[in-house]
Amino acid sequence: MENLFYFSDLFGVAVFAITGALMAGRKSMDLFGVLVIAIVTALGGGTLRDLILDNHPVSWIRDDTYILVASLAAVGTVVWVRLTRPIHETGLLVADAFGLAVFTVIGTEVALQHQVPLSTAVIMGVMTGVAGGVMRDVICNEIPLIFHKEIYATACILGSLVFITLRELGTPHWLDTGIAMLVVLFTRLAAIRWHLSLPRFHLLDRYT
Amino acid sequence: MENLFYFSDLFGVAVFAITGALMAGRKSMDLFGVLVIAIVTALGGGTLRDLILDNHPVSWIRDDTYILVASLAAVGTVVWVRLTRPIHETGLLVADAFGLAVFTVIGTEVALQHQVPLSTAVIMGVMTGVAGGVMRDVICNEIPLIFHKEIYATACILGSLVFITLRELGTPHWLDTGIAMLVVLFTRLAAIRWHLSLPRFHLLDRYT
Amino acid sequence: MENLFYFSDLFGVAVFAITGALMAGRKSMDLFGVLVIAIVTALGGGTLRDLILDNHPVSWIRDDTYILVASLAAVGTVVWVRLTRPIHETGLLVADAFGLAVFTVIGTEVALQHQVPLSTAVIMGVMTGVAGGVMRDVICNEIPLIFHKEIYATACILGSLVFITLRELGTPHWLDTGIAMLVVLFTRLAAIRWHLSLPRFHLLDRYT
Repeated sequence: MENLFYFSDLFGVAVFAITGALMAGRKSMDLFGVLVIAIVTALGGGTLRDLILDNHPVSWIRDDTYILVASLAAVGTVVWVRLTRPIHETGLLVADAFGLAVFTVIGTEVALQHQVPLSTAVIMGVMTGVAGGVMRDVICNEIPLIFHKEIYATACILGSLVFITLRELGTPHWLDTGIAMLVVLFTRLAAIRWHLSLPRFHLLDRYT
Repeated sequence: MENLFYFSDLFGVAVFAITGALMAGRKSMDLFGVLVIAIVTALGGGTLRDLILDNHPVSWIRDDTYILVASLAAVGTVVWVRLTRPIHETGLLVADAFGLAVFTVIGTEVALQHQVPLSTAVIMGVMTGVAGGVMRDVICNEIPLIFHKEIYATACILGSLVFITLRELGTPHWLDTGIAMLVVLFTRLAAIRWHLSLPRFHLLDRYT
Repeated sequence: MENLFYFSDLFGVAVFAITGALMAGRKSMDLFGVLVIAIVTALGGGTLRDLILDNHPVSWIRDDTYILVASLAAVGTVVWVRLTRPIHETGLLVADAFGLAVFTVIGTEVALQHQVPLSTAVIMGVMTGVAGGVMRDVICNEIPLIFHKEIYATACILGSLVFITLRELGTPHWLDTGIAMLVVLFTRLAAIRWHLSLPRFHLLDRYT
């Protein structure tokens, strides 16, 4: 179980690194840029969470598997695209949703171990899931995608709330983890499938 | 007195959250984006200060009133604008100046408690006041307003210096806090009223 | 030796602050903006490294010489350009390469003192060298230069690897420091001289 969780985490790291490498490619960055954006996307959310919670050492500091997996995923993406293989868009979206689910549950759990209020635990779950992608977009000079596209963070919020509720109810660890991950996964996949988005807030320039 | 300070702090959080929500609206973000930008604007400066000073737990981690106030202010802004009520621009600027004053004094005081050199305390006061707004602008893909508009951070520097000087002179806490806040408030309001700005540094492209 | 290192560090701070001030000038920022961008460029990389390694107090918190040197360098740049003196571009590039060399070695050494894996030490060396410049570019709304221009971070990687290898071999401290710095310096200068760059990753829009 512990192992399964660790490998899921690394899978999430790899998928997020791929989305980072693709964004770097769209900006015509060089190999170093691709590596940095991939690593920031994959590990930025968890790092920010650990810094704010004072949860040291930050995961990837002691275990260099994380950096290795993110780097390999980035280089693999470049090689794959160079061989002019197309990116399987749907496959990537599903994998990304799975990564999001893992990160959200991990983030919520780490926060709960620090005895924070439940609302803070939800925020930490969401932050772990989405902050890396926000950093990727900000460094690449784009307004973060998740602030104006289909439901993404909302899936994290729901999954995190379900995880906390089940934990409070005392369900076994494998069960609350599994159900919470499925909630994130299905919410996100439903949002992609039916183009669900949150209402947007258009402020005309005449205001302020 | 302690209570008065706490409520002033929450008032500052609310005002800064409103400016964040308005910026998110100008970028047509969705509800989640509005919440994130509001929270980052309201709590980003204090969080960065706490991380750099190693001042844990970060304020909003244990007391979820901060997140709650920022979120309510953000949602309230959206509802208010949806009802096509105009934003009272002058009122918002005055409220923002008040928030700036509170944050500057709090930031300087927290730094002083960590036995840092006085120059570092001033920097922490300014950082608490302005870094949230800088993060808001960077995430929203704008060059930070405070780097090229009317005097803003300069008001924090003055207020922070006055606060430190009075503390060194041994005035009562309510007095140095009050005077320092008034200094920030009046400097900022004077800057708005008479469009005072710092000299700008225009570098033509032929240099470097 | 200790002193020589400290002054080299301050020299690096000054040079990086100048590149920050010049970028702020290209964006027509005001004096406060120039100061902030200069300080962030000069101290941002080391600060991020210290936060992630939990290496407190952050260097400039206790010793205000760092902030003072960065501020003086920024103000000096503005005055220099105002007197319409041209910037000696080649001189600045060489000085910047020297600053990069110092920061890389310091960053790697600080990381090694925290008993991290060697790969993490390299990352910390690179981060100390380049993260300040990345923050400068992101705040100024530019895609970071080092992700698409001549070899820059690669010089840090090489220098950091050489430093670690020599340390493992047990060479005297002045020797591994000196050689590693020369490696960074010459790699960077060679890259500038012959316009060496890493291969770039162009992703056409039809992918993803």
